[in-house]
Amino acid sequence: MIEAPYLLFLGDAHDQLAAKVALGIRDWRPEVARGQLRMKGCRADLGLPDMTLAEAKAAGVRTLVIGVANRGGVIAESWLKVLVDALAEGMDLASGLHNLLRDEPVLAEAARRFGRKLHDVRVPSVKYPIANGVRRAGRRLLAVGTDCSAGKMYTTLAMAREMRARGMKADFRATGQTGILISGDGVPLDAVIADFMAGAIEWLTPDADPDHWDLIEGQGSLHHVSYAGVTLALIHGGQPDALVVCHEPTRTHMRGLPHYPLPSLEATRDLALAHARLANPGCRAVGVSINTQYLGEAEAKACLAEVETRMGLPAVDPFRMGPGRLVDALAAL
Amino acid sequence: MIEAPYLLFLGDAHDQLAAKVALGIRDWRPEVARGQLRMKGCRADLGLPDMTLAEAKAAGVRTLVIGVANRGGVIAESWLKVLVDALAEGMDLASGLHNLLRDEPVLAEAARRFGRKLHDVRVPSVKYPIANGVRRAGRRLLAVGTDCSAGKMYTTLAMAREMRARGMKADFRATGQTGILISGDGVPLDAVIADFMAGAIEWLTPDADPDHWDLIEGQGSLHHVSYAGVTLALIHGGQPDALVVCHEPTRTHMRGLPHYPLPSLEATRDLALAHARLANPGCRAVGVSINTQYLGEAEAKACLAEVETRMGLPAVDPFRMGPGRLVDALAAL
Repeated sequence: MIEAPYLLFLGDAHDQLAAKVALGIRDWRPEVARGQLRMKGCRADLGLPDMTLAEAKAAGVRTLVIGVANRGGVIAESWLKVLVDALAEGMDLASGLHNLLRDEPVLAEAARRFGRKLHDVRVPSVKYPIANGVRRAGRRLLAVGTDCSAGKMYTTLAMAREMRARGMKADFRATGQTGILISGDGVPLDAVIADFMAGAIEWLTPDADPDHWDLIEGQGSLHHVSYAGVTLALIHGGQPDALVVCHEPTRTHMRGLPHYPLPSLEATRDLALAHARLANPGCRAVGVSINTQYLGEAEAKACLAEVETRMGLPAVDPFRMGPGRLVDALAAL
Repeated sequence: MIEAPYLLFLGDAHDQLAAKVALGIRDWRPEVARGQLRMKGCRADLGLPDMTLAEAKAAGVRTLVIGVANRGGVIAESWLKVLVDALAEGMDLASGLHNLLRDEPVLAEAARRFGRKLHDVRVPSVKYPIANGVRRAGRRLLAVGTDCSAGKMYTTLAMAREMRARGMKADFRATGQTGILISGDGVPLDAVIADFMAGAIEWLTPDADPDHWDLIEGQGSLHHVSYAGVTLALIHGGQPDALVVCHEPTRTHMRGLPHYPLPSLEATRDLALAHARLANPGCRAVGVSINTQYLGEAEAKACLAEVETRMGLPAVDPFRMGPGRLVDALAAL
């Protein structure tokens, strides 16, 4: 668990897009995003108060989160002094970069010296169990996709927020690095050892109140030959009661696989349901989430209407119109 | 690659079953099993010449293979002197135990001092790529199962041997620890990081002659909620042209999962084919391999005849009657 509140470190981000992780935290957990720290030359801006380390400490910040991804996912030489100073001020560090904080000797040494934690969310910090397939109390929704990066994290984050706003019991369950930094906890599933994938998801979504929902962030796609095994472990480990099928309608082939066309929404739903019912025979598809960011307003409406008719399920873009109708479908289960 | 020939170390094995790995090497690669080394109290016997380390060295042995699994998969204190002496004699060490050779300071130090290798096949030693799904030359068969431990390794080993005896080009491709120690090479798939599972299998079964067959050892089952993700990665990464469905007919539930019944052979075949055709649209089921060790002669025959009629595929027990008819089916493709 990463301790809040956060100071979001933007370093020398060369544009706004490089600050994607920080933007995610600002948007989804504004209550923990106390301020931003920008170095000379930084071209990103979260619209949060700029703070020195001393100001952040005075404001109660517990963790400096590296909210910027530079080319290659490395920890820049130029950041090290700031990061060491943050440790000296009593803050922990958190990072989702490929290169680990703990592998930088100067950071490892400073963390030891000042008694602080280095959270490298790229790699697991837990010894996960082997999945046992035993049914757990509480309810679970899993986002599955026709492809990678189709909007699964966004959909489950938006649903969790809407459900809490309605007074429902709901938790977003992160399974990827960005989701973990946003929620402060989770399983970096793509970095888990094969035998423990499904068990890691059982661990992430334990017994809960009968009316509590885990909104589980999906990963990959059953139709993506690079990562389908990860997706299947999520389906079996998550034991979902409900699936939302996520889709980006302008994509012409599977991400990174130019020779593989996208599966249909129907094939995605049917294959995911067939696998999900092994661990939870009552699993149902409750809605479709379409990422319409590359469509105009009229096109988007037409696309959603067509999918809704075809699939017989509410079809929404949770960014454009909110996830309300997906939550309605869950509440009606 | 583990260098042959081997001296098979049986330590103080408390019974014959504890020497399972050594028995596998003796049975499947008799040409590399030069001798056995038994310590005081050892109750296993491979029927191979007993050798001292000096005798093994004189016989050309390159690697001492730990062919015994004691309770807990640890390296016994009492073995260490022998293992260090083997390194001093110029042999490498190979082990599939959970506790790693490299984590024993005395072995790590001796290996360094004598310039020898420690092969811990339990963990990967290669940085595998992400799978790209591009079709490769050559042909591949994958063993899939209704459950774990249904005879997949045995089936593919037996087929590879039969194919070579017939002059066909064939290689057994190990995906588990015992298979790796038998073949001297392979991918310990259950220990691979999630994102690289399918890529590891692409790496294991590269481009080959058009008439060359990789016989890929299967793992787990698509219907086993603990490990199905591993199985799916094998199916996508392996791009099989042919599947053999493996089954143990007396099992009453999935291994380790008392609440999960076994899937039918038909369901196993259909689900595996549906996934396999994503990466290789021409994939076909060519046969069924039934492990009849717990059936009497008449029962076994009746079982095989019933399955053969029902499935319309050759159904054999490769241990009882040899894998010839499975190889015939491959040769006819």
